[in-house]
Amino acid sequence: MKTRWKYLSLLLLIATGVLGFAGVLRAEDVAAAPDLATQVAELQTKLGDSKIAADTVWVLITAMLVFFMNLGFAMVESGFARAKNCVNILSKNFMVFAASSIAFWALGWGLMFGDGNGFAGLSGLWFLNGADNSPASGDAYQGVYSSISWATVPFLAKFFFQLVFAGTAATIVSGAVAERIKYGSFIIFSFVLVGLLYPVTGHWIWGGGWLAKLGFWDFAGSTVVHSVGGWAALAGVVVLGPRFGKYGKDGKVNAIPGHNLTSGTIGVLILWLGWFGFNPGSTMAAVPGDIARICVTTNMAAAAALLTSTIVSWMFLGKPDLGMSINGCLAGLVAITAPCAWVSVGSSFIIGAIAGVIVVFLVLMFDKLKLDDPVGALAVHLGNGVFGTICVGLFAQDQFAPGTTGNGLLFGGGTKLLMAQLTGVGAVAVFTFTAAFIAFWAIKATVGLRVTLEEEIEGLDIGEHGQSAYPEFVTKKASHQMLSAMVNAGVPVATSSRIKQGSAV
Amino acid sequence: MKTRWKYLSLLLLIATGVLGFAGVLRAEDVAAAPDLATQVAELQTKLGDSKIAADTVWVLITAMLVFFMNLGFAMVESGFARAKNCVNILSKNFMVFAASSIAFWALGWGLMFGDGNGFAGLSGLWFLNGADNSPASGDAYQGVYSSISWATVPFLAKFFFQLVFAGTAATIVSGAVAERIKYGSFIIFSFVLVGLLYPVTGHWIWGGGWLAKLGFWDFAGSTVVHSVGGWAALAGVVVLGPRFGKYGKDGKVNAIPGHNLTSGTIGVLILWLGWFGFNPGSTMAAVPGDIARICVTTNMAAAAALLTSTIVSWMFLGKPDLGMSINGCLAGLVAITAPCAWVSVGSSFIIGAIAGVIVVFLVLMFDKLKLDDPVGALAVHLGNGVFGTICVGLFAQDQFAPGTTGNGLLFGGGTKLLMAQLTGVGAVAVFTFTAAFIAFWAIKATVGLRVTLEEEIEGLDIGEHGQSAYPEFVTKKASHQMLSAMVNAGVPVATSSRIKQGSAV
Amino acid sequence: MKTRWKYLSLLLLIATGVLGFAGVLRAEDVAAAPDLATQVAELQTKLGDSKIAADTVWVLITAMLVFFMNLGFAMVESGFARAKNCVNILSKNFMVFAASSIAFWALGWGLMFGDGNGFAGLSGLWFLNGADNSPASGDAYQGVYSSISWATVPFLAKFFFQLVFAGTAATIVSGAVAERIKYGSFIIFSFVLVGLLYPVTGHWIWGGGWLAKLGFWDFAGSTVVHSVGGWAALAGVVVLGPRFGKYGKDGKVNAIPGHNLTSGTIGVLILWLGWFGFNPGSTMAAVPGDIARICVTTNMAAAAALLTSTIVSWMFLGKPDLGMSINGCLAGLVAITAPCAWVSVGSSFIIGAIAGVIVVFLVLMFDKLKLDDPVGALAVHLGNGVFGTICVGLFAQDQFAPGTTGNGLLFGGGTKLLMAQLTGVGAVAVFTFTAAFIAFWAIKATVGLRVTLEEEIEGLDIGEHGQSAYPEFVTKKASHQMLSAMVNAGVPVATSSRIKQGSAV
Repeated sequence: MKTRWKYLSLLLLIATGVLGFAGVLRAEDVAAAPDLATQVAELQTKLGDSKIAADTVWVLITAMLVFFMNLGFAMVESGFARAKNCVNILSKNFMVFAASSIAFWALGWGLMFGDGNGFAGLSGLWFLNGADNSPASGDAYQGVYSSISWATVPFLAKFFFQLVFAGTAATIVSGAVAERIKYGSFIIFSFVLVGLLYPVTGHWIWGGGWLAKLGFWDFAGSTVVHSVGGWAALAGVVVLGPRFGKYGKDGKVNAIPGHNLTSGTIGVLILWLGWFGFNPGSTMAAVPGDIARICVTTNMAAAAALLTSTIVSWMFLGKPDLGMSINGCLAGLVAITAPCAWVSVGSSFIIGAIAGVIVVFLVLMFDKLKLDDPVGALAVHLGNGVFGTICVGLFAQDQFAPGTTGNGLLFGGGTKLLMAQLTGVGAVAVFTFTAAFIAFWAIKATVGLRVTLEEEIEGLDIGEHGQSAYPEFVTKKASHQMLSAMVNAGVPVATSSRIKQGSAV
Repeated sequence: MKTRWKYLSLLLLIATGVLGFAGVLRAEDVAAAPDLATQVAELQTKLGDSKIAADTVWVLITAMLVFFMNLGFAMVESGFARAKNCVNILSKNFMVFAASSIAFWALGWGLMFGDGNGFAGLSGLWFLNGADNSPASGDAYQGVYSSISWATVPFLAKFFFQLVFAGTAATIVSGAVAERIKYGSFIIFSFVLVGLLYPVTGHWIWGGGWLAKLGFWDFAGSTVVHSVGGWAALAGVVVLGPRFGKYGKDGKVNAIPGHNLTSGTIGVLILWLGWFGFNPGSTMAAVPGDIARICVTTNMAAAAALLTSTIVSWMFLGKPDLGMSINGCLAGLVAITAPCAWVSVGSSFIIGAIAGVIVVFLVLMFDKLKLDDPVGALAVHLGNGVFGTICVGLFAQDQFAPGTTGNGLLFGGGTKLLMAQLTGVGAVAVFTFTAAFIAFWAIKATVGLRVTLEEEIEGLDIGEHGQSAYPEFVTKKASHQMLSAMVNAGVPVATSSRIKQGSAV
Repeated sequence: MKTRWKYLSLLLLIATGVLGFAGVLRAEDVAAAPDLATQVAELQTKLGDSKIAADTVWVLITAMLVFFMNLGFAMVESGFARAKNCVNILSKNFMVFAASSIAFWALGWGLMFGDGNGFAGLSGLWFLNGADNSPASGDAYQGVYSSISWATVPFLAKFFFQLVFAGTAATIVSGAVAERIKYGSFIIFSFVLVGLLYPVTGHWIWGGGWLAKLGFWDFAGSTVVHSVGGWAALAGVVVLGPRFGKYGKDGKVNAIPGHNLTSGTIGVLILWLGWFGFNPGSTMAAVPGDIARICVTTNMAAAAALLTSTIVSWMFLGKPDLGMSINGCLAGLVAITAPCAWVSVGSSFIIGAIAGVIVVFLVLMFDKLKLDDPVGALAVHLGNGVFGTICVGLFAQDQFAPGTTGNGLLFGGGTKLLMAQLTGVGAVAVFTFTAAFIAFWAIKATVGLRVTLEEEIEGLDIGEHGQSAYPEFVTKKASHQMLSAMVNAGVPVATSSRIKQGSAV
């Protein structure tokens, strides 16, 4: 027995020793494991950095496309106006982005995205001076711009993207007030709009303000950018009054054709391109499924609107007018801007198709109301900015971004979302129109808003800038025709010796 | 002995216990391992997502560049035509992308990429209604668009990229049939081309059809896009006939200069930019080495062709004609489109250099054949689309994409590839020319294809659109000169009171 | 005792056996560990590839934006010149990129980035024929282009990015020598500039040459690209002399307005866009914080300069001149190019604001010196290229890129950096001006540099290209006015029968 025990115990000893040693050896095999953990942690950090890099590339490049829309607006607006005002419009559209950059840097950003109350941002107001540890996001975020802390890109990428958006709002105004506003006065208004007005309503919606809390949704800015620009433009149009010669005494509306449809077409195609930054870029992250879908909904709305606006203008105006097609396309793009991320491709087609019809009748309507808008900015940006915002309440589908908009009315979501959208439309209308009206009125009462009648007839290029856009080309004497119209209209031309000289030519 | 055994066994017990415990401890050290495995699996998923994100960003941005080519074509084509037809050409080039978007969405995509037979796609035909689990790819793909399941991007990214390509084919036709085709009839043809004809030959080559199986290769579309556009354009030119006044009774070819070379230059440089989307984007993935090389081969072919076309036109036409340089550059870009991914930088230079020579003589040849193409689209897109497709059979090198084209004739691969390329060229020619001819003929027989002679002389801008591109600028009386030519040519002008009135002016 | 020992030993045997076995089991748990290590290694490789992909996408897309600047320059330069020279300027700006592509491929790249001495690259000189295992970087790099081995992108991505930069330098010259240089002679000079001169100074700074070793810093090329282009342009202006009619006998400077400010505005906004490639792309990697900050500093300098140049021209010239605003904006962009990565947003605003003031007075100064530069290229690219390079020595802050520039004078870094910057400015000035002067002089002495007076008066479009940019538009008889001026100036017009005929018209 004893010997058996001995051998048994020896056997067991050896066996367990071997087993134990094997355990050690197996563990030796994974001797790298502690290193592995470190490596995996490193990989996680690097992969996070990689995502930040991809998101930043996406945000910056789409921001560049939105920046490029400045050229698009400059071309559409100058092309739709007369040659004698071309330098002025180009100058305004060029300078306005400089004004926007400075105003949004100095104050606008802080008012819009700074932590504050439901009405405006109150932290980090001046020159981006608030704390911010972006690209840290979510719970890791520490700073005073919490409302945009969901975006996983560096702080200045956020600023750059939002800056080019702010610039767009100001550019919209430019077209509506063209051919009669003083250059300097427009620039002053742009500082006010981008530094003060745009950021306030922007705070309500994108800055975590009261409309955001109410459940109002605007993905890329049908309201935040386009209808805000539109309401400000409307205020300008009301304060300025129509261009000389636009509306006859007998109520007749005189068409004033644009001087360069090549410019107009360059403009609209650059804007269409720019919208592929505007809408898909508003994800502020390179989320494959979302950005691809938004590209397609954006494009489909533009295509549908281009088609329907052309057909409608063909049917109602007799021929397919290129100007109407251009504004139709832009209308579709404005309308899809708010809902682009939350609707199906089919819905985007319908939204665009309706926008293309709406814009034609809105252009006619604004003319009936004697609201003189040389480029159709009110019909495009105001009218379809409102329409697009409402479309969120109609066409949104929860499936595209669970937990955000929920379903719109047409997809079984009831009227709750629609009501929130309508509330937002109304609130932004009241605030922006009123504030812009006061601003325009204050400028008018101080430095003056409108050029003299003489200058308007001669053209703002000579009057405001002392130069001509095309000095070597012979143009039909628009000023001469204007003068005749003026005489017919009973304007006391005798008071102006300069115009007399003009009439002699 | 006993005691010794006791101590020995005790010692061994302790030793093995320690060893065993050490094993446990070592294993404790890697207690994190199961978590690690999870983490690594997560990392793999995230890294896959990261690749999909990078690929999607690349595909969408290059697609945007290709979209922008619409402006490039609009500028080249309108700039190369007369001012009196400018609005019409701009309208066509603008509207054609809307038509393409809708046609390719409704039917074209399914016909091209849907699973089916060697001739056409037959699954998921209408409005992208087929199943598809992209960005799953390869074996993981489940859906009815298998031929493009290699691309690791979301479904709508694939659609968007292919859509902008389809739009290009239609735009090519626009230039060749300019200055005489009815606006509405051109739009109808565009629906047919993008909805039916382009997708069928596209299916043969990129949709897994019979040419793909035969070993025919076309990387970015010298054939799929450019020569298809070119053959359709040729059919249009044949059915329409030349512009009034282009070919005199004595066989003399009258040069009809374009009205705006600023537009032409804007156009070609936008197209060159767009080609950096067209060719490198056709990887449909951000593969660093490939996309960098394709950027360089694309650029080098354009540069070489621009240089040789300018030198050749200088030598043979007396002066370096800017129009020829523009078409030369485009010829080089079209020619490198098929082989761009499979040739060396040196080969791309040679391909471009030859293309630049070919295009000059093709322009002259088409004029000799009285095939009136106002912008040189046939020489650029048809001629060099064919040439570029053949170049794959000559210059391809297996090293750039092992297991695809193999080597071309000049790199020791024999004539097999070249024969496949020639077969493809011939098959596409027969199908597209025939089908487009029938389509143009059917349109002619129903709604009509060509504007009236009166309208052609007055200009399509007034006739089709009721407006003028540059209403304020004074242009030389092209219509007056035309009328004289018409009288000299014996056209019975007496039948037209409108032209008489015109002649009075 | 014995029995106790037995049981004890049995117990211990079992215990240690269990422990040992447990160790084995725990190790079994991590049986996947060796696979994990493989997987982690794979992940690291893939993550490295992912970074290369993101960097390559960034480098290629920003390179495309820089390529697009060719259109920007073509538009600014042609718009600022007269209609009769428009085709010529467009042709030059179009062809120059082809010439640059070929020259930089054939030789320039090797001279600039090839390993060599402090003065020039001497390895892999011809047609990129040196060894290079990019995207391997740092210690893993093996090849002859070591100075750019820090960039983690494929070789041809590096080449493409540097190529579009080289093209820019040549384009700058184009504007300054416009309206009088022979087409072919300019193209020859472009080959010399991009093949020889630009790469040499480029080697000094970016190719690891003597200025790099001295501690001279130029992030995106205020000196490497812009002032090099500017010095070459100055040499051209000196050798060519002013345009006919620019400076009267009485020392009066005659303003020669540009023919198309729509073109000018298209140009400047494309250039502003392109600069978002030029500056942020010069990271040659998608580094989120850096590329975002550089976008903002670039934009802020442009905005500030646009504002100050407009205000200054308003104050000193009476009205806000659009041409001055355009050059002001470009001046800000040129000035921020060298320091963009190393300065704060606030500093970028100050740099831009000063650049906008400088450019107005430089334009006036160059005119006083009778250095006739039709587009203001000397004031913009030379003047502000120098200013921007100096700004590095003043405004740089170490915090933005520790271990590179260190702090500039205004941030406590003393004068060391500033002295290096001034040395670089001086050395580049002497070399480039001298070499370009010799090149222009040699061209003048052989094939000739300037068109005849007749041709200059008639316009280079007819003389050099046999065509007109806008053949249908009626332009004011610039040639007639010129002739009168010529007669008044005492030029023996009788020697030219062609001009006589012209005067009859």
